Amino acid sequence: MWPESFRRVVEQLSRLPGVGDKTAQRFALELVLEPALALELGAAISSMPTGVGRCHKCGNLAERVEGRPPECTICLDPRRNNKLLCVVGRIQDLLAIERSGAMRGRYFVLGRLLSPLDGVRAEHLPTAELITRVEALGVEEVILATPPSVDGEATALFLARELAERNVRVSRIASGVPHGGDLEFSDQITLGRAIEGRRTF
Amino acid sequence: MWPESFRRVVEQLSRLPGVGDKTAQRFALELVLEPALALELGAAISSMPTGVGRCHKCGNLAERVEGRPPECTICLDPRRNNKLLCVVGRIQDLLAIERSGAMRGRYFVLGRLLSPLDGVRAEHLPTAELITRVEALGVEEVILATPPSVDGEATALFLARELAERNVRVSRIASGVPHGGDLEFSDQITLGRAIEGRRTF
Repeated sequence: MWPESFRRVVEQLSRLPGVGDKTAQRFALELVLEPALALELGAAISSMPTGVGRCHKCGNLAERVEGRPPECTICLDPRRNNKLLCVVGRIQDLLAIERSGAMRGRYFVLGRLLSPLDGVRAEHLPTAELITRVEALGVEEVILATPPSVDGEATALFLARELAERNVRVSRIASGVPHGGDLEFSDQITLGRAIEGRRTF
Repeated sequence: MWPESFRRVVEQLSRLPGVGDKTAQRFALELVLEPALALELGAAISSMPTGVGRCHKCGNLAERVEGRPPECTICLDPRRNNKLLCVVGRIQDLLAIERSGAMRGRYFVLGRLLSPLDGVRAEHLPTAELITRVEALGVEEVILATPPSVDGEATALFLARELAERNVRVSRIASGVPHGGDLEFSDQITLGRAIEGRRTF
């Protein structure tokens, strides 16, 4: 009972992460009622694939420029500390760490985590690229910032072993009770880690 | 620190209802990682304003066809009951009622509800268009299906008064405890209505 071009927008929108049929329908209705938004959003989305690529050095988002491989603003920034390399699973995690302002070194985006259940095994990780990057920058410390989940821990453990033979310090981000978090409602693994990872006051 | 065309997509996406900066960013990242989706979604959204309009009879979504005003599938369907007209606030509500399968008559979408706080007064409602529609169809019963909220009730009351002089029965959708709902967690207004609106078993 829906017009064909409306149905097509709902179908495509529901392919976005966390968007079900009802949400897609709500978005599409908003776009029908606001044709100016539809035209601007449509044009912006259509032109993104030619405008944005992945940095050939670290995997972060990067502006595409004619004639040379994409390179992100972090890799292009000469004030960043080459001795510190932060390894993350996804671009989202890189953006989150950047927002914290606590990391002034370089990054490396894995793009995936070890996940035997999903068929992601060691050979699917960009380990060789990571090692090349460590050597090219002259990195002294690699911070493994994969999430404190089963897959994230397995990935960190695997990379720590691969990097053990290199002349580089390997560290892992702290896991514990989050800022503003309530001890009463923290799960036992988190609390266990908070105790184990305690620091002298 | 973001590529310009990525930033633009995030900005436009965050204008969708219920989408904040973080959700917009997550959608945009998905579109970067899936360029095929970006191209299809961008094209679908861009072409919607020329493909979809509002039905000139009822305000529902309608396919735009060259040379004549848009008319929706419900208004075009000869099997629908002209004697029953269901008045709703928004297209979403029409779609929800259609999904229930309980309404086989025609519709009229108001597009807004009376809301003195937002500056929507009686003269902003399409009352004349509604009456024209009632007369053109030869409607015998108007079902006021605006939501059971303050604005929805005010709108229903206003329209009921406007229609009182016409030779037409006016009804209001039932308000009470929803199917599968728990009495313990129903608010007192809903429970009050469920008792008042009780029906003989």
